Amino acid sequence: MGNYLITRRGRLHLHRFRILVIDPISNNTLEGIREMDEVEEVHYDKYLDESSILELLPNYEVLVLRSGYTITHEWLEKAINLKCVIRAGVGTDNIPQQLLQEMRIKFYNIPHATTTSVAEYVVGSILIQLRNLIPAHLSIQKGEWKKAEFIGNELSGKSIGLIGYGRIGQEIDRLLSPFNVNVLYYSRTKKRNVAHARYGTLEEIAKKCEVISVQVPLTRETYNLLDENFFSSIKNPVTLINVARYNVINMKYLKKALINGKVRSCLIDPFERGYDISPYDELPIYFLPHLGGNTFEAQDRIGEEIKSIIRELTYK
Amino acid sequence: MGNYLITRRGRLHLHRFRILVIDPISNNTLEGIREMDEVEEVHYDKYLDESSILELLPNYEVLVLRSGYTITHEWLEKAINLKCVIRAGVGTDNIPQQLLQEMRIKFYNIPHATTTSVAEYVVGSILIQLRNLIPAHLSIQKGEWKKAEFIGNELSGKSIGLIGYGRIGQEIDRLLSPFNVNVLYYSRTKKRNVAHARYGTLEEIAKKCEVISVQVPLTRETYNLLDENFFSSIKNPVTLINVARYNVINMKYLKKALINGKVRSCLIDPFERGYDISPYDELPIYFLPHLGGNTFEAQDRIGEEIKSIIRELTYK
Repeated sequence: MGNYLITRRGRLHLHRFRILVIDPISNNTLEGIREMDEVEEVHYDKYLDESSILELLPNYEVLVLRSGYTITHEWLEKAINLKCVIRAGVGTDNIPQQLLQEMRIKFYNIPHATTTSVAEYVVGSILIQLRNLIPAHLSIQKGEWKKAEFIGNELSGKSIGLIGYGRIGQEIDRLLSPFNVNVLYYSRTKKRNVAHARYGTLEEIAKKCEVISVQVPLTRETYNLLDENFFSSIKNPVTLINVARYNVINMKYLKKALINGKVRSCLIDPFERGYDISPYDELPIYFLPHLGGNTFEAQDRIGEEIKSIIRELTYK
Repeated sequence: MGNYLITRRGRLHLHRFRILVIDPISNNTLEGIREMDEVEEVHYDKYLDESSILELLPNYEVLVLRSGYTITHEWLEKAINLKCVIRAGVGTDNIPQQLLQEMRIKFYNIPHATTTSVAEYVVGSILIQLRNLIPAHLSIQKGEWKKAEFIGNELSGKSIGLIGYGRIGQEIDRLLSPFNVNVLYYSRTKKRNVAHARYGTLEEIAKKCEVISVQVPLTRETYNLLDENFFSSIKNPVTLINVARYNVINMKYLKKALINGKVRSCLIDPFERGYDISPYDELPIYFLPHLGGNTFEAQDRIGEEIKSIIRELTYK
């Protein structure tokens, strides 16, 4: 792939890539890619509708996306020149990897770039949920002044369950090390050499933990991972945060748990375009537009990685 | 103070205290005090107006308050039976200590009970401000879905200025130890044996730090501490949090700094009853009803301390 000649004076590019970017990336990243010798054109258009994407796809050789879209058969039928898909982030649940492989379209994700961003976000979200910061701020905005109503809890002394203990889970654990917490983790594979955390089953985490954070990839196994059984096993009111994907939590049972108080407060980060918040009116649940990895620093790292992937393509 | 006899069979109380509590305290604390042998009556009434307090004061010997009220000459004139004032928390700017001393009214504050709560609150507030969590949540509630607009920053790699480096400042520093930050602190007294932090002047902090947290007591010296000069010295857009008192920051110049972008976002915790938010409409400033030390855990510690102060009174 890529046509080039090696001469005595160096590498001579005969092919430069046309690149389509359909999810938000930083201007830095965009400019960095545009300035590359290996790049002919970058078309950047975020928040496109499906039909516009289908129209654009035939003209591009590299597709860069985040989690905003799912690649379908139809996309790939249209994408007659596509040679490479780059997922600018971690999760690959929106990518039909098997199909790409069969079609000899290369696929890359960028798993490391957002770890720090997501882990910091989880720690912050836990701490402010425990303190009712969002509802208290809204109350002030309404002209109220309530203090006793918003009394909160310290994190210190609590048990925290990390569901998912890969890069992100372990980084959360590391950041929490001075906070005097007891960490239980759940993972498909038990980890060795874990200093702070102890392995626990999902049920054990539901029974013992006051704070639970979910950071698993979405797979067939993790779909609906926090199900009726999980929520009914909860003993102490739980503060919950989901920085994974929407469907790892069964929202029907989460809603019940919010109503019956088993979940005291919940922050759902992967709330995507078009989802409906109305079933959760008046419940202590905070939806965010997938901000976990959404920092300038992560974007800059992603930009560097995208450039090095494109450079690599030209050598292959 | 307190009338009792020591007999061979132990201490015999002839005096039991009448206690007036005028700021929110937890039910646990309240019940704990009510059950004490040393206590005759606890009158608990929060959010009272001034005239109701003046009516109640003559009947009580112990007054328990937090930061919701300022004790005045008039109060003390009415409080003909007052023997002891307990400030259930740290700050003493609402207490005329000199006057209490002249009137031989004992005074106690409870400085240690809230340290962990406040420090955790600061760390959480920093992390979520850097990620635009509050405005992003409000945007979702309005039915919008914006991601690129709410791109944030990691804390990792940043310089953080701690203005005030007593119990709370040092605890914030300790909690931040795994976050890969460069800590500058400002304090009336330079501290020795500081592992992570380096001393800096206010101007140095304004020039070098991307994140600044203020946790000084309010005194004559700290009134207006963050003034015109401070805000004009800022170089990089600052994320600011105030868990001290409202008047340690000059709000006029803070507002200017929010408008000209020198302060990117600001969280003001000590927003008391009756303050006006309207001058700050549409600015990235988040007011909270003084929640820094407002946890069940801190309240329980305060309750234990109040009880031990009352027990001590009976021995004096």
